[in-house]
Amino acid sequence: MKRHKLIVVLCLLLGAVHAQEAQHSVAIARIYENALTQGNAYSWLDHLSNKIGGRLSGSYNAERAIEWGKEELEGLGLDRVILQPVMVPKWVRGTFEYARIVTGPGTTINVPVCALGGSIATPAAGLQAQVVEVKNFEELESLGRAAIEGKFVFYNRPMPAEKINTFEAYSATVNQRTQGAAKAAQFGAVGVIVRSVNLRLDDFPHTGSMSYGDLPNKLRIPAAAISTNGAELLSSMLALTPKLQFFLKQNCRNYPEVPSFNVIGEITGSEFPEEIITVGGHLDSWDLGDGAHDDGAGVVQSMDVLHLLKKMNYRPKRTVRAVLFMNEENGLKGGREYAKQAKEKGEEHIFALESDAGGFTPRGFIFEASPQQYEKLNTWLPYLRPYMIDRFDLGGSGADIGPLRNNRTVLAGLRPDSQRYFDYHHAASDTFKAINKRELELGAAAMTSLVYLVDQFGF
Amino acid sequence: MKRHKLIVVLCLLLGAVHAQEAQHSVAIARIYENALTQGNAYSWLDHLSNKIGGRLSGSYNAERAIEWGKEELEGLGLDRVILQPVMVPKWVRGTFEYARIVTGPGTTINVPVCALGGSIATPAAGLQAQVVEVKNFEELESLGRAAIEGKFVFYNRPMPAEKINTFEAYSATVNQRTQGAAKAAQFGAVGVIVRSVNLRLDDFPHTGSMSYGDLPNKLRIPAAAISTNGAELLSSMLALTPKLQFFLKQNCRNYPEVPSFNVIGEITGSEFPEEIITVGGHLDSWDLGDGAHDDGAGVVQSMDVLHLLKKMNYRPKRTVRAVLFMNEENGLKGGREYAKQAKEKGEEHIFALESDAGGFTPRGFIFEASPQQYEKLNTWLPYLRPYMIDRFDLGGSGADIGPLRNNRTVLAGLRPDSQRYFDYHHAASDTFKAINKRELELGAAAMTSLVYLVDQFGF
Repeated sequence: MKRHKLIVVLCLLLGAVHAQEAQHSVAIARIYENALTQGNAYSWLDHLSNKIGGRLSGSYNAERAIEWGKEELEGLGLDRVILQPVMVPKWVRGTFEYARIVTGPGTTINVPVCALGGSIATPAAGLQAQVVEVKNFEELESLGRAAIEGKFVFYNRPMPAEKINTFEAYSATVNQRTQGAAKAAQFGAVGVIVRSVNLRLDDFPHTGSMSYGDLPNKLRIPAAAISTNGAELLSSMLALTPKLQFFLKQNCRNYPEVPSFNVIGEITGSEFPEEIITVGGHLDSWDLGDGAHDDGAGVVQSMDVLHLLKKMNYRPKRTVRAVLFMNEENGLKGGREYAKQAKEKGEEHIFALESDAGGFTPRGFIFEASPQQYEKLNTWLPYLRPYMIDRFDLGGSGADIGPLRNNRTVLAGLRPDSQRYFDYHHAASDTFKAINKRELELGAAAMTSLVYLVDQFGF
Repeated sequence: MKRHKLIVVLCLLLGAVHAQEAQHSVAIARIYENALTQGNAYSWLDHLSNKIGGRLSGSYNAERAIEWGKEELEGLGLDRVILQPVMVPKWVRGTFEYARIVTGPGTTINVPVCALGGSIATPAAGLQAQVVEVKNFEELESLGRAAIEGKFVFYNRPMPAEKINTFEAYSATVNQRTQGAAKAAQFGAVGVIVRSVNLRLDDFPHTGSMSYGDLPNKLRIPAAAISTNGAELLSSMLALTPKLQFFLKQNCRNYPEVPSFNVIGEITGSEFPEEIITVGGHLDSWDLGDGAHDDGAGVVQSMDVLHLLKKMNYRPKRTVRAVLFMNEENGLKGGREYAKQAKEKGEEHIFALESDAGGFTPRGFIFEASPQQYEKLNTWLPYLRPYMIDRFDLGGSGADIGPLRNNRTVLAGLRPDSQRYFDYHHAASDTFKAINKRELELGAAAMTSLVYLVDQFGF
């Protein structure tokens, strides 16, 4: 009889466990159904992309985006919506940027270029000089000052097509853009032309941040990106005509820092309000397109996490916050300020999740977590596999939430399919048209589901 | 000492196993690198889409595609390239198809329509009648002849957005298109207007096959698809003006069957030439777009399997065949003929793989296999996980290889991400522009890798 009792108790326990599992599965099914049929992400992104547009830190559009984000979050009936002040850099593209390959008097070919973010202008009349093509800094150094002085350095290392994860291909090439000018200036170059960090051959120049490091002002040289087709053309023409000249004219400019804001909306936890779960994307974008993928998608997905929880009348146990970070692209001031204030206030972030890899079909999440935390996370993967979330990997999570890194907080990044991302990244082609509604919504649903699981189970 | 010996032997064995595993990993890495840097799939698809275009069975373009496929396969230096004769249906869209909503004399709104494949024409002067909107066959039946006779039936059941796999959403709605006319004709309808099987709201009508079943010729009625935006408009106008009329005019036509071909290229196996591994896609396409996703992608990926194996100087142990099937869209005559001849010749297909779900990022494969075969397949998944192939599922493989089904042959389908597929499916938007080079190439690489593993291990 004792044994029978034990079996009955075990069955009841198992039944309770199964009932709980079923309850979570049902909740996640509702999240997905709501996201795909009544989500706000797509219409929000339509507005942010098409009615506001590109929103570089310090710009008028960035201010409009802040106002819009605040109003939309307020419309959700959250417990708290605030603007968190932060000083941000201000760089302005100016009124023109153009370039041509000059092979002789009156024999020129225009090529698509754009100034890199942070670059100085050319002299008002433009800058014309011969071109030295290199693939990397080693080649630059081996050529030395004699070969480089007075010339443009043309960095033409393509993204390696054989990498499966395009972010790895990006990491393998982006130093041309970020440090290329500073390096070339040390050898007396007059300017740099950088092959766009784009896996496709097309006509869009891709901007992005660059830095002069501690190079004195008087040694700084202008830096521009050239489209991949333009780079191929310039390279092939250099092979035929090594002494051809390149003409570049741009009037971008750096200004002193200006005040701006992170936008924060919050549902206060009902049981553990001091435990904070943050989801976010960055509200600023580059100025060439409308920043739909980078990172309008992450912004509206993060907002939709709160919207979907409210819509389901789900009252989280823990505090759930959406943060629209300012200035990821050229300073990371918003992410740093958020982490600084969190530390000062002694806030306990148990989880922070960023979406900043485009609005494409989600494939999984990437985590910065201890072995114990990662083990726990992996017990949740079966809840998401029915929704084509197949990967819980370990790795770098996201730039804006990076400053929250400590030994306790689990950091996470949404990982959408990466194949198309660098077709649009920082280019005029990053527009709302390149967004697929369902793919965007599946990302919002995956994020909401993960937040739900963290809220239910904690760490 | 005996024990030491055993350990040494075990270590050697383990070492051999590891060396073999490493050899397969290296081979697959080479396949991917070649596919992404020197694959032919993208340039082949450019030609097939842009230089040949839509290629419906029995059309001039279908003949051109057959010639092209044969020549390109011959250029690969295969052991055998043949054309396999097959009779196929011939349906022609005709020279016009248009429609308008008529709310009063001279008060009309044009809406985008296209004839469904297999439909008869309207009378030469067009067809005008009132409209009865239904969501499904049950509603049609409950309305009955009194409500339907002399009118258009407008099938307006949307694809269910909450399905994660869009092919499930397709299955849940496509019977409106395939059987809608035959059903409505039984109640005296004069024609059917079918909401396009598309998850997006846009202006493209999507064609596709329909059948009158055994309905006598004199009872057959014209069938057209209307764009999703057009369907929304018609539905909202019907709510306001139930007696509005719809005008449809189309002059499509069915012809007797005509001769055509499957195109087959083969590398003969060096050890087990009688064991055949077939990969394929279908060469015919609908006529509105250029059929880049459906199924130009599958065609060029299958051709690239042979190209990549040749390029690596890989001599398969088993016979590897690429089959470009004719007439998947409106008859499946090519697939049936291929299987029939295989059976007649006593060919032993150990594996058949089809790519017919678009040229998007591959997520995995789907198999029709015995439990033992599936267990073996799953031991290979670790070779493909580094390439973001995450799923080996069980389920329906592909239409063209379906006729090969028996209790021995493993059937498989490439499973790309499905979210964007029905945006393009059977519509004028299914063009080369909608193809991403890397996504297409990753599919070819995944297929080649799977074929390599089947060739190495057999079943």
